[in-house]
Amino acid sequence: MKIPGIRDYVIEKLHYILYPKTIAVIGASRDPNKIGHQILRNLVEGGFKGKIYPVNPKAKEILGLKAYPSVKDILDEIDLAVVVVPAPFVKQVIQDCAEKEVKGVIVISAGFSEVGNKKEEDEIVEICRKHKIPLIGPNIVGVLNSSYRLNASFAPSLPFSGKIALISQSGALIIGLIGWTWQYRVGLSKIISIGNKADVDFSELIVYLTEKDEETNCIAIYMEGTDAGRELMEACKRAAGKKPIVILKAGFSKRGEIATMSHTGSMAGSARVYEAAFKQSYVIRAEDLMDLYDKALALSYQPPAMNDNIIIITNGGGAGVLATDAAEEYGIPLQDTPPDLAEKLKKYMPPFGSTKNPVDLTGEANEDWYYGAIVETANHPEIGGIIVIYCHTAITDPMKIATGVSEAAKIAREHRKPIVACFIGGEEVERVSNWLKEQHIPTYPTPVRAVRAMAALREYGRIIERVKRGE
Amino acid sequence: MKIPGIRDYVIEKLHYILYPKTIAVIGASRDPNKIGHQILRNLVEGGFKGKIYPVNPKAKEILGLKAYPSVKDILDEIDLAVVVVPAPFVKQVIQDCAEKEVKGVIVISAGFSEVGNKKEEDEIVEICRKHKIPLIGPNIVGVLNSSYRLNASFAPSLPFSGKIALISQSGALIIGLIGWTWQYRVGLSKIISIGNKADVDFSELIVYLTEKDEETNCIAIYMEGTDAGRELMEACKRAAGKKPIVILKAGFSKRGEIATMSHTGSMAGSARVYEAAFKQSYVIRAEDLMDLYDKALALSYQPPAMNDNIIIITNGGGAGVLATDAAEEYGIPLQDTPPDLAEKLKKYMPPFGSTKNPVDLTGEANEDWYYGAIVETANHPEIGGIIVIYCHTAITDPMKIATGVSEAAKIAREHRKPIVACFIGGEEVERVSNWLKEQHIPTYPTPVRAVRAMAALREYGRIIERVKRGE
Repeated sequence: MKIPGIRDYVIEKLHYILYPKTIAVIGASRDPNKIGHQILRNLVEGGFKGKIYPVNPKAKEILGLKAYPSVKDILDEIDLAVVVVPAPFVKQVIQDCAEKEVKGVIVISAGFSEVGNKKEEDEIVEICRKHKIPLIGPNIVGVLNSSYRLNASFAPSLPFSGKIALISQSGALIIGLIGWTWQYRVGLSKIISIGNKADVDFSELIVYLTEKDEETNCIAIYMEGTDAGRELMEACKRAAGKKPIVILKAGFSKRGEIATMSHTGSMAGSARVYEAAFKQSYVIRAEDLMDLYDKALALSYQPPAMNDNIIIITNGGGAGVLATDAAEEYGIPLQDTPPDLAEKLKKYMPPFGSTKNPVDLTGEANEDWYYGAIVETANHPEIGGIIVIYCHTAITDPMKIATGVSEAAKIAREHRKPIVACFIGGEEVERVSNWLKEQHIPTYPTPVRAVRAMAALREYGRIIERVKRGE
Repeated sequence: MKIPGIRDYVIEKLHYILYPKTIAVIGASRDPNKIGHQILRNLVEGGFKGKIYPVNPKAKEILGLKAYPSVKDILDEIDLAVVVVPAPFVKQVIQDCAEKEVKGVIVISAGFSEVGNKKEEDEIVEICRKHKIPLIGPNIVGVLNSSYRLNASFAPSLPFSGKIALISQSGALIIGLIGWTWQYRVGLSKIISIGNKADVDFSELIVYLTEKDEETNCIAIYMEGTDAGRELMEACKRAAGKKPIVILKAGFSKRGEIATMSHTGSMAGSARVYEAAFKQSYVIRAEDLMDLYDKALALSYQPPAMNDNIIIITNGGGAGVLATDAAEEYGIPLQDTPPDLAEKLKKYMPPFGSTKNPVDLTGEANEDWYYGAIVETANHPEIGGIIVIYCHTAITDPMKIATGVSEAAKIAREHRKPIVACFIGGEEVERVSNWLKEQHIPTYPTPVRAVRAMAALREYGRIIERVKRGE
């Protein structure tokens, strides 16, 4: 069922799904192997502070919580109904939810349009729309809100907390992507598994997250396709300049398009159509899964780059050259270091260092040189952003270097200039990189990824300019 | 000084540099902050089994080893002289080495052509060539041989041991890249820091590693540029079909070329010239640092793919679509699963799985299904290689899945068909991925990287065909 535009009641009521005070888990099970049990357990163990009501006509109590035969038997008002009964029972459950006047519904259960059962899916949606209840799903992993400690999903843990909202059309990827948030310190505010998107599609979630959710400052989307392209474009345009949107569109290849259709049943649409639509709608595209996280991380932690004059500061010539190659590839035309800045930078390098862009502090660089060089660069009025590269050496302590970078980044932040880092090394350097990310400095293991992240910050800067000019 | 072709004595004597029985460290220092101390300590602590002779006219003993005023005072024959005295003293030291008839020399010391001091560099090279002593450097981190426990460098540790020989023109990257070998389980046999390559250039190292070094089965090169292009091509052609060569060429962009010149002083040369030369010489190109490791890992652990018919086996539709997109991008034209294979694969998935390529075992897939699906695919005569994808789920144990994959990979190996894997998840999944790599199954965190690695195996398969056809 195609969405009839962007609906006000959905934008308003999505709040009940993401910040519910009361939840009914319909299909909660006593059997630890059943998804209906796992979801209840995840809610409880996730630390949800509101009230949880298991619904199961055959149980009196599950996980120490009183169970109810039907959602209608619960005396409390219900903000969110999590539906996990088998597909043939979903319609009746939704009818009950409508009568109970629940505020929002998510349907975990599979067995609908993704296996050809479009009729029942449409009927469920019809009930929800008639009663103005937004529905997410069916066929989803669930919905997670990290700050609110809401894990209404069968993913075993909440993500590392942050400001990125992730919307995923692939359920299978979500658990792995949660693992990445901890491993790579990519902080998420929400995860919304969108599944068959029978009712609520990308567009309304984008509008809600942009306009209503203060805990989100960047929206990352894994998308296979949508039938509601017009609404998607409208939502992205409404978000433009307010919050950046990064989309990884899968199914861009000819064969990928076919695979997408067999996977989610949604039309992938021609690559060119999506490409043009994204461009028009101020969407930043991700190249792959890691790039989706890389770009979202940068956009969520750093201000946009408002001009092309990006300076690379490195302690290794080779890494500087690789970053220079990447800058050209990703549309950052590097410029020479302004002469007055070059003069100042000489203080932070030995005579055989280089003040050219990339600025080479050499392998002798310590934390003071990094600090000084970054601060001078951030203070220079012509500079739009800074890429800091550290190659691990035998004589430097990466944690000290990171501390210098982090202190200097505060000055850059005062000037609203973005900074991203590349720290190359082994496990110790990875721990330091994670610490830097906790200080909101996007840090990557390779020059290419750092440059690509800065290119996203520049792209977002250009989007802001386009919006200002009314383009 | 341009190399006069590929010299037999160099190919023969490089063995003394990489497998020395006796080493003189000329410029060994008692001061723990000096590189001349660190190198001696790294040799000792690295576990080198041969004899080490510190040379320092002002010391009697360093780290418990008797020190000698000059290399000429050592009674033993010297296979390798490691020179770490300041640049102005190097020439005299090399003269001493020549008189002592050492078999090979590496010059760690900087301060030569990279800072404009070409004259002294040429003089040193002249002495070495006159006495047929191969010289690596100057301006290098050193030379490491993991199986031989030789750490003749100022990098604090040997790499994780394996079959890849790494030649790097950037010294600064080496310590970080050693960290990666442990973190990502990328096994290296040798690391050779090539520095100013005043005497021995890439070409002779390639010939030595291909023809003389049984512990190397793949050569990975970080290159900024060379003046000996003809020799490089000749060496790569000699290696073609014997051992794969992967090169990351930095300085491919216009500005990167300038940065390269300022960094190593070598002409980067136009991107097109290198591209054509690499193609003609059967070189596999890496896109970035991580890709250099990714491709070398696959090439060192797996046989080449001898046809285009690659099957993707996944438990997540979305990851399958991403892999399909990547396959098109990286030149693997995916084909339909042969009907007889598709029929057999049905045993290893629920009714809503897909036998199309990508084969979707669904999120319910356990280790037995993975094992069965991989073995059936490996056994099918038309299939050229297999990409296995695992997205972490709430109900599967990644170690069990990995064990199934590893067992099935043995069957693939019997058929000499390559297998690469993508395991998507958090820290637990990363540990499992590292275990898979220890079983010689190249494993990556994203579908794109797994596909790119398989594309390298296919490229090497095509190279073998070209060589056979005499192209």
